[in-house]
Amino acid sequence: MPRSQAGLGGEVVPGWRAVRELLVAKRRRVKKLLIDRNREKPDEEVLELAREAGVRREFVEEARIAREAHIETHQGVVALAGPVPSVSLDGLLAKPQVFLVAVDGVTDPQNLGAILRTAEVAGATGAILPRHRSASLAPAAVKAAAGAVEHLPIALVGGIPGALEQTGRAGVWSVGLDAGGTTPVSELTVADAPVVLVLGAEGRGLSRLARERCDVIASIPMHGHLDSLNVAAAAAVACFEVAARRHL
Amino acid sequence: MPRSQAGLGGEVVPGWRAVRELLVAKRRRVKKLLIDRNREKPDEEVLELAREAGVRREFVEEARIAREAHIETHQGVVALAGPVPSVSLDGLLAKPQVFLVAVDGVTDPQNLGAILRTAEVAGATGAILPRHRSASLAPAAVKAAAGAVEHLPIALVGGIPGALEQTGRAGVWSVGLDAGGTTPVSELTVADAPVVLVLGAEGRGLSRLARERCDVIASIPMHGHLDSLNVAAAAAVACFEVAARRHL
Repeated sequence: MPRSQAGLGGEVVPGWRAVRELLVAKRRRVKKLLIDRNREKPDEEVLELAREAGVRREFVEEARIAREAHIETHQGVVALAGPVPSVSLDGLLAKPQVFLVAVDGVTDPQNLGAILRTAEVAGATGAILPRHRSASLAPAAVKAAAGAVEHLPIALVGGIPGALEQTGRAGVWSVGLDAGGTTPVSELTVADAPVVLVLGAEGRGLSRLARERCDVIASIPMHGHLDSLNVAAAAAVACFEVAARRHL
Repeated sequence: MPRSQAGLGGEVVPGWRAVRELLVAKRRRVKKLLIDRNREKPDEEVLELAREAGVRREFVEEARIAREAHIETHQGVVALAGPVPSVSLDGLLAKPQVFLVAVDGVTDPQNLGAILRTAEVAGATGAILPRHRSASLAPAAVKAAAGAVEHLPIALVGGIPGALEQTGRAGVWSVGLDAGGTTPVSELTVADAPVVLVLGAEGRGLSRLARERCDVIASIPMHGHLDSLNVAAAAAVACFEVAARRHL
């Protein structure tokens, strides 16, 4: 599923949590809700939210859900909506207590969605996604985000290195996360300063350009035999390190 | 794919990382390696490890890989091996500096695999999986574990509540992770005491019985609109909180 040229995409919303937040947040138009007619226990709260919002509900065969959802793990529900609106990076930088997560080159939609969910729960004030070289808000990403795309403001930028130049000029401390980093993530001294966490691709890590624009490269200490964490797990550890310092 | 009655399963090993660790760890018999013959850049190190170990390598069509791997994200490689050996819980408890991760009712194989990978990297000394009510080491779990199942000792138990009774008798502090927990995970005072982290199911969280057997219920503070983290993300945050206290 190609990303629409114009924006973030995310028009296909599979899974009960994602659909619930779509209906609660009311940030975008919802065209309709398709529900597996043979499902024993649909989420009554979600059905009621849709009814209240005047959203058309169609009870259909599971095969139809699978076709519209484009993923197998749809849980018997998919909503079709307008695209996820993007915000400007300037807008993100104008907020108080900036805490951004920039995702550079993450190609697996499920990882992308998981990172957005984690960032939202950790209290991030926004995310930065590049227009190219990364996963789009494909159905698997929207499902894994579990509604984060409805709440977390997302800026779509030409490239992460350029965006980091802009965040740097705005006085935001940029922390790249990479296995080769010299500062353990638990020793970051960002406290509650404005910060952008920069996450690199699965396997390859940060791109050279993104790395050069970071003020510090932090790593998560490894204590086992494996030499790397999944990028979504690394994002969780780093996001909650930042969160813990802001909410002492 | 039903789990074999006898043990952990895990005979199907898709993905380059998982295959690499299988060959490096040498803990189980490897029957053969299937590689997509049209793949432009196979991992030469993995091919060489297989050659050295005398493992049969077959270069086949992608469709054959997909059929054997049972998942789409196989990266053009799958190994077929003997089952992942399990260890006894007594054996896990006999080790120094016990740091266990017990997984109760996690049904998504990718979450299970991600949790095992994170636990291994965080320096856990073992994992505890229940024989029923959880995902088995299905191909998606083995792929997501990225080789963790080759290094992290895993005990297969009749049920998590019973296992926690046994760990408690051995003087191991049990910490359940649940959104309703009263102790923020960052304020745990486990330091380097023997500890077992207990993770509950996606959505439902800890079972009542498992919760009752925990010495403390910890939670990860939520700072956004969403009311829950993915269980693998929560596991990452909690595992590295424990790791940070052990490696000051």
